[in-house]
Amino acid sequence: MDNANQSYDKLLGAVRTLGLWTSVDAVLGWDESTYLPEGGVALRGEQKALIASTVHAGITNPQFGQWLIAVEESKLIDEPMVAANVRECRRAYDRFTKLPADLVHRLAVAGTSSREAWIEARKRSDFSHFRPHLEKILELKREECRHLGFEINPYDAMMANYEPGAETSKVAAVLGALKKELVPLIERVKNTKRPPASVELLKSAMSEAAQFAFGKEAVEAMGFDLKYGRIDTTTHPFCSGFGPKDVRITTRYDLNYFPSSFFSLLHEAGHGLYEQGLEDKYFGLPMGKACSMAVHESQSRLWENLVGRGKPFWEYFFPKAQVYLPALRKVDCAEFVRLMNHVELSPIRVEADEMTYNLHIILRFELEQKLLLGELKVADLPAAWNEKFKSMFGFTPKNDAEGCLQDVHWCTGDFGYFPTYALGNMYAAQFFEAAHREIPDLDGQLSKGQFKPLREWLREKIHKKGQLLMAEDLCQEVTGKPFSHEALVRHLTKKC
Amino acid sequence: MDNANQSYDKLLGAVRTLGLWTSVDAVLGWDESTYLPEGGVALRGEQKALIASTVHAGITNPQFGQWLIAVEESKLIDEPMVAANVRECRRAYDRFTKLPADLVHRLAVAGTSSREAWIEARKRSDFSHFRPHLEKILELKREECRHLGFEINPYDAMMANYEPGAETSKVAAVLGALKKELVPLIERVKNTKRPPASVELLKSAMSEAAQFAFGKEAVEAMGFDLKYGRIDTTTHPFCSGFGPKDVRITTRYDLNYFPSSFFSLLHEAGHGLYEQGLEDKYFGLPMGKACSMAVHESQSRLWENLVGRGKPFWEYFFPKAQVYLPALRKVDCAEFVRLMNHVELSPIRVEADEMTYNLHIILRFELEQKLLLGELKVADLPAAWNEKFKSMFGFTPKNDAEGCLQDVHWCTGDFGYFPTYALGNMYAAQFFEAAHREIPDLDGQLSKGQFKPLREWLREKIHKKGQLLMAEDLCQEVTGKPFSHEALVRHLTKKC
Repeated sequence: MDNANQSYDKLLGAVRTLGLWTSVDAVLGWDESTYLPEGGVALRGEQKALIASTVHAGITNPQFGQWLIAVEESKLIDEPMVAANVRECRRAYDRFTKLPADLVHRLAVAGTSSREAWIEARKRSDFSHFRPHLEKILELKREECRHLGFEINPYDAMMANYEPGAETSKVAAVLGALKKELVPLIERVKNTKRPPASVELLKSAMSEAAQFAFGKEAVEAMGFDLKYGRIDTTTHPFCSGFGPKDVRITTRYDLNYFPSSFFSLLHEAGHGLYEQGLEDKYFGLPMGKACSMAVHESQSRLWENLVGRGKPFWEYFFPKAQVYLPALRKVDCAEFVRLMNHVELSPIRVEADEMTYNLHIILRFELEQKLLLGELKVADLPAAWNEKFKSMFGFTPKNDAEGCLQDVHWCTGDFGYFPTYALGNMYAAQFFEAAHREIPDLDGQLSKGQFKPLREWLREKIHKKGQLLMAEDLCQEVTGKPFSHEALVRHLTKKC
Repeated sequence: MDNANQSYDKLLGAVRTLGLWTSVDAVLGWDESTYLPEGGVALRGEQKALIASTVHAGITNPQFGQWLIAVEESKLIDEPMVAANVRECRRAYDRFTKLPADLVHRLAVAGTSSREAWIEARKRSDFSHFRPHLEKILELKREECRHLGFEINPYDAMMANYEPGAETSKVAAVLGALKKELVPLIERVKNTKRPPASVELLKSAMSEAAQFAFGKEAVEAMGFDLKYGRIDTTTHPFCSGFGPKDVRITTRYDLNYFPSSFFSLLHEAGHGLYEQGLEDKYFGLPMGKACSMAVHESQSRLWENLVGRGKPFWEYFFPKAQVYLPALRKVDCAEFVRLMNHVELSPIRVEADEMTYNLHIILRFELEQKLLLGELKVADLPAAWNEKFKSMFGFTPKNDAEGCLQDVHWCTGDFGYFPTYALGNMYAAQFFEAAHREIPDLDGQLSKGQFKPLREWLREKIHKKGQLLMAEDLCQEVTGKPFSHEALVRHLTKKC
C-alpha cells in the first residue's frame, strides 16, 4: 500500500510536469496564431518539436508504466478521483507506447506537406493536387489504427483521440436519429427569406474598435475573466487555456459583418469559461482537464447558440449593441433575433446556421469512415461528396473548394474529430434544458444580463469535475437522462 | 581525432538544444512583459522554472564536461571557430557546475522577495524596508563569488557573468579616464538653457498611433526587418531575440513626450539589428550569439545616440516627423536637434542625457564594488550614495527613491552589470569613428536616409562574428585600435 501511494505520488508528479510542458507548448501555439512574424515559423516548429519529444520521452518512460500498474493493482483505485486520473494516464501511456516513434514522425512530416498541398489545392480548387497526399495520410492513419488496436471498427481508434468512450455504432445511431428529425425541420424553414433591407443593414461598416468593445462587454458579462485571460485577433478563432489562470481567446473582424466576430467571441468565451472553471489545484492532471472534445464544444455552442442567439440574451444586449453599433438602430430587437437565427442550406460548414450545421457533420462522418476503411477511394471522394451533398442539401457545391476541400481536418489526419462538433451541439442542448429545470427563471435572468447563475451551474456541474466522469456518464449525472439527440431537436423545433 | 570530432558534434548538438530551450524561455519572457494577464504570473513562473532546471540538467551533464575535454585536448581547438565555441561552452559549464544547485535556488528565492521589497521601498522611498533584503542578497553573492573563484577581485567574478574578459582594474582605469574628461565637458554645458517654448512644444499631446507610425518608419529604414520581428508595447522597453528570424522589440508611449517612445525604439532596434544580424546557421552556439553585453549595448547606443541624435539623421527624418507629428512644425530642424542633445545634471539614470549618463554608471560601479567587498555597509549606502552624488552632480537627490533605490539591478543581485552600459557607450563611439573612416561620406548617406551601408558594415564587422572574438579583441580588429574612452570623449566634445 505504501508502494502504491508512492507510485501514485510519482505518477501525479510526472503527469503534472507533462501538463506544464503542454502549457508551454500552448503559449508557443497561441503566439504562432496571433503574433508570430512570418519569418519565425521554422524556429517555432523546432521549439514545438523539442517539447513534443520531451513529452513523449516523459510519458513512455517505463517507470510511468510501473507506477500505473502499482496503483491499478492497489485499493487506491477504488477512490473515484484516483480512478479517473489513472484511467486517463493509462489511456495516454498506452497510446504513446503503442505508436512507434517513426510512425509519429512520418505522420508529422506527411502532415506538413499534405497541409501545404491542401492549401494550394483549395486555392486552385484542384483536388488532383491534394489527392496523393490524402492517400498517403490515409495509409499512415490505417497503420496507426493497427498499432492502436480496435475491437470492431478502426474508426473507434480514431475517435478515441478526441472523444474517449465514443463508439462508432452509437455515434452513428445518434447522428442518424438526429438527421431523421432535422430533415423535415429544415424542409419547413428553408425557404424563409430574410428581409433584404435588414440583411443589408448587418452588412454596414462597423469599426473593429466598436466590434471589440461590444464583444468584450458581452464576454465579460458572461463571466470570462480578463484578469485571467485575454482577447486577441487571429485568422481562425480559437481558445487556448495555458491553465485556469491564463486563458486566451481570439476572434477575427469582418468590418462589414459584425456577427462574424461577435459569435466567434461568444463561442470561444464558452470554451474559455470551461478552461477558467477547471480546478487550478488539479492543473496538469486528468482531474484538471476538460472531459472531452464534445463536452468542450458543448460549452462553446451553449453560449454561442443556446444563449447567444436567444431572445432573452438580446433583450438585454440589443440596446447596448445599438449604442456600440449605431447602424443597428434601424431594426428592432425581434427582427434582429430573427436575422441571427436564419436557416439556410449553404455549402460551407463554418458559415452554416445552428440547424443545418449538423448535416455538414453527418456528411463528413459518413464519408471519413468509408475513406478509413478503404470502401471509398480517395480518387472518388469529390464525386461521392457531391452526390451525398446533393441528396442532403438539394444542390451541388459549385466546386471542390466549396466541397470536399473546404476543411483542414483530413489533410493532417484528424479523422474522427468531426462528430465531436455535432455531439457538442447535442450535449449543449441537453445541458441547457437541465439548467432551465434547475435554475429558477433562467430566461428571466438572462434577459436581465444576469449570467452568473448559469455560469456557476455549469462550473459546478461540469467544469470543476474535470475528467472525473466520461462524457456520457457526466451527461447522465448532470441531466438525469442518458445522452440523446432529443433535447437538440426540441430546441431546434421551438425555433421553427 | 575521430573521438574529438564525435565529441565536438555531440557538444554542439547539446548546446544547440540548450539554445532552443533558451529561445522557448525567451518567448515566455517576452509574453510575460507584453501580454500576460495579471493572474497568469504564477503559472508563468512555474513554466520558466521548469525550463531553467532542464537547461541546468543539460549543461551540468558529466558527458558535457567529457566532450569539452576531448575537444580541448585535440587539434580541433586550433581552428578559431572551434576555439570560440569551446571557450564559451567551457565558461558556461564551469559556472553551472561550480554553483551548488541549492545556492542558485536560495538566490532565486531571495531575489523574488527582495524585488518585492525594493518595489515597495522605492514607492515609499523607505530604504530601511529594503535594507535587510539587500544584506541577504550581498551575503549570497559573496558566497557565489567564493564558489566561482577569482584571482584578484570578487567583482571580476561578477562582471564575468555579463562581460567575459573584463577585469575590474582595467574597467576602473577606463572609467576613471572617461570621468576625468567628462567633468570639464559637463561643466562647460551644464548651465545651457533650452528655450522654454521649444521644450513646451515637445510636450504637446501626440497620439500613440502617430508615434508608433513614425517610430516604425524609422526602425524599418534602419533595417529592422518586420518579416523577422515585431514591435510591441511594454512598461520597461527591451529587445528579445528568440533567434535571428524572430526578434521582438518593445517601447512605451508617453503621449505628452514623444522622444520617450522614439529613442527607446531606436535603442531597441539597435539591439534588434544585432540579433537579426547573427548567423542563423550557428543558432544556439556561441558563434551565433552576441559577443558581450557591452558590445550589445554598443549597437543600441550607436543607433540611439550616435546616429539618432545626430544632425544627418534628422536632416532626413525631421520633415517626416513633422508630417506624423504636426506640433513639430513650430520649430526648425536645427533647434530640434539642439533639444534632442540637451545636457542636464539630473538624478535619474534612465532619464539622463548621453553625456551625464556615464557619471551615473561610474557612481554605481564604485559603490557596488565596495558593497561586495564589505567595505561599505548596506546601512551606510544612502549616505554614501548622496555624498558621492553631491560631489559628482553638485546636488543631493531629494530622497532615496531618486537616489540609491532607483535601479532594479541590485535587488536581484545583478552586481557587475552597470559598467557594461558605459563600456557600451565607449564601444559605440569607437565603432562609429571606424565606420566613418571606412564608409565613404557616411554622414551624407545618413542625411539621405541611406542606412544600409552602416548597417551592413556593422553586420559584417560585428554581428556575423558572434562570439568568435572577445569584446576587446573584436574592438581591436574592427577599429584597428585598442579599446579606449577616447572616441567617446571626441564625440561628446564635438557636441559641446
